[in-house]
Amino acid sequence: MENFNFYSPTEFVFGKGMEAQCGKCVKKYGGTKVLIHYGSGSVVRSGLLDRVKKSLEEENIAYVELGGVQPNPRDTKIYEGIELCRKEKVDFILSVGGGSCIDSSKAIALGVPYDGDFWDFYGTGKPVEKALPIGTVLTIAAAGSEGSGASVVTKEEGMLKRDTGSDLLRPRFSVLNPELTCTLPAYQTACGATDIMAHVFERYFTNTKEVEITDRLCEGILLTMIKETPRVIADPDNYEARANIMWAGTVAHNDIVGVGRSQDWNSHAIEHELSGLYDCAHGAGLAVVMPSWMEFVYKHDVMRFAQMAVRVFGCQMNFAEPEVTAMEGIKAFRRFLHSIGMPINFEELGAKEEDIPVLVKKLGIKDKTWGFQPLSSADAGEILKIAAHAKVEE
Amino acid sequence: MENFNFYSPTEFVFGKGMEAQCGKCVKKYGGTKVLIHYGSGSVVRSGLLDRVKKSLEEENIAYVELGGVQPNPRDTKIYEGIELCRKEKVDFILSVGGGSCIDSSKAIALGVPYDGDFWDFYGTGKPVEKALPIGTVLTIAAAGSEGSGASVVTKEEGMLKRDTGSDLLRPRFSVLNPELTCTLPAYQTACGATDIMAHVFERYFTNTKEVEITDRLCEGILLTMIKETPRVIADPDNYEARANIMWAGTVAHNDIVGVGRSQDWNSHAIEHELSGLYDCAHGAGLAVVMPSWMEFVYKHDVMRFAQMAVRVFGCQMNFAEPEVTAMEGIKAFRRFLHSIGMPINFEELGAKEEDIPVLVKKLGIKDKTWGFQPLSSADAGEILKIAAHAKVEE
Repeated sequence: MENFNFYSPTEFVFGKGMEAQCGKCVKKYGGTKVLIHYGSGSVVRSGLLDRVKKSLEEENIAYVELGGVQPNPRDTKIYEGIELCRKEKVDFILSVGGGSCIDSSKAIALGVPYDGDFWDFYGTGKPVEKALPIGTVLTIAAAGSEGSGASVVTKEEGMLKRDTGSDLLRPRFSVLNPELTCTLPAYQTACGATDIMAHVFERYFTNTKEVEITDRLCEGILLTMIKETPRVIADPDNYEARANIMWAGTVAHNDIVGVGRSQDWNSHAIEHELSGLYDCAHGAGLAVVMPSWMEFVYKHDVMRFAQMAVRVFGCQMNFAEPEVTAMEGIKAFRRFLHSIGMPINFEELGAKEEDIPVLVKKLGIKDKTWGFQPLSSADAGEILKIAAHAKVEE
Repeated sequence: MENFNFYSPTEFVFGKGMEAQCGKCVKKYGGTKVLIHYGSGSVVRSGLLDRVKKSLEEENIAYVELGGVQPNPRDTKIYEGIELCRKEKVDFILSVGGGSCIDSSKAIALGVPYDGDFWDFYGTGKPVEKALPIGTVLTIAAAGSEGSGASVVTKEEGMLKRDTGSDLLRPRFSVLNPELTCTLPAYQTACGATDIMAHVFERYFTNTKEVEITDRLCEGILLTMIKETPRVIADPDNYEARANIMWAGTVAHNDIVGVGRSQDWNSHAIEHELSGLYDCAHGAGLAVVMPSWMEFVYKHDVMRFAQMAVRVFGCQMNFAEPEVTAMEGIKAFRRFLHSIGMPINFEELGAKEEDIPVLVKKLGIKDKTWGFQPLSSADAGEILKIAAHAKVEE
């Protein structure tokens, strides 16, 4: 096991009706003037925004609002948020929405106390030294941003999608009420589930040997997702299944299942170019990219893929030909994604094979990426070619 | 799933040589005058204490020392610590040792700013309102106290073992260096492993249905312990196995595997009377009590025990007679404990059947306990009778 630091100080407030705790939580963590940041009209229509405001008012906490965050959140909205916070002397940001809204909130949080352009921190590794505290009320189980220090946002000019990360961006608290996810359309639910599974897989495929505890925790989340996702697709109001998925989504990405070993974020990186170019859902892009990435890299460590096949997808181990088992696991993953309504190739996603050179160029790989199997630009192109033509196979 | 709060703000600093980070960590969390609290001479002989002091000196942090914490830590030492901290104006407590040392440190931490007797908080549910911050350097994987807000200590008069808990007692940081555990005798290592597994089982046996994510995470830790414990017993210097066990021990008890459902701490409660009366190792007492508790309660939810048998101990499901599978799992657990050198009955533990009435009386059950299956005093007596005569069975 490699040396590591694990630090996840976020207080998770989980369960039915918990958004009523918002005001108390903001107060506990020192907020006196809040920016409520949200996305679509659904948080308005559902009455959630009103409940959040009421909870703040009950604690006599002042607030201003900024809605309109889009999926793949844009820099333009972030600049607007930073300006508003400065003008209104906001000292706490409360995100009411999904991963995009949280990531936009994090960008605003680091931008407000910073003298230059917030974009300086994205895709550059520049360390964040100061940020406003944030809290979240989560409305979709997917990104895991409610428990992580990561933020991914998009520069509208050129549709560049880049990320940053810092412990300072970890939410002080996150309210997780599974009821809020019951009204999500099946497609969005499935996109979220795919994102959650991808967060685990990006940690599962490691070159560090013998980190059994992390393997087992990863497999536990994946097994849960395989059981619970079809249940919520079939029965959107199934609270128990929604609750399992929501908590799985948080645990999948606060890094408790990633410590002590190398990780691999190449599928995420490749996908970011797809959703950057086509503005598709991140989870949908992952459903197309990730099994294709697996097909391309599995020979790098056949036994690890065989372990996934056996432990996660219940395949029988072929001891004479472990490669067969490894491929069976990858096929099972793609079948699972198809079964929950995810696209699995370019046509289903709305992507075009002729764009592959553009996608690879935007990816901007210099020499090779890092990860389980470092990738060249040519490798990324091959993965996208597999993705373009992928099919469900028995 | 039941509503819950999950809050684990401790920073875990994990890996080889990490005790050198102590000074930096104390500084980061605001300590300026430290009480170094430790147990046996082994932290002195191994040079660990010197390395910790050096690390504090490098950051110009002043310290005083108090050694001599015993297993099942005593109130007498705690009073001594409280007095010393007040006299020396200590503002941070650094525990260098195992669970007993951490629990003693927590008692001192809450006792220093409190006007009355620190014992007021133990076994009473009285809420802790103030405590000095603490940090830990862990030397044995077992108690999980390095990541929890719990503390269990013993009043010498009458050997009463009682507990308290508060988020204020969660360590600010915990240094986990698996190398420090390589010199532990096999018996202590196995006691620690048993404690870790018990912490998971006390959460696994729940009356809350359908919390798949927590079940799977519990099973992941148990599977890890079953794989790694025999490896360290056979090869004490196996760093990778030591590392897996150490991290499993922390994850087993910061409650990440216990949220959203009822728990059951009756085995722990019964064991506390054994180690209180005989001063035996807590893990050894658990090895005797826990499988016996399982035998007594399994009919309360046969399918849950069958799930344990199949998923954790690899038993084949007997679909016609699930009770048979359930009992097979319990027997497999006891065989496992025996195989790692743990006592499994009163004789092996050094306990006496004729003491059962005394043990039950000290347990002081009024009406019934709470938990998976609430227990009366008579039930506790029955469990201890099973424990008295338990045997390894195929």
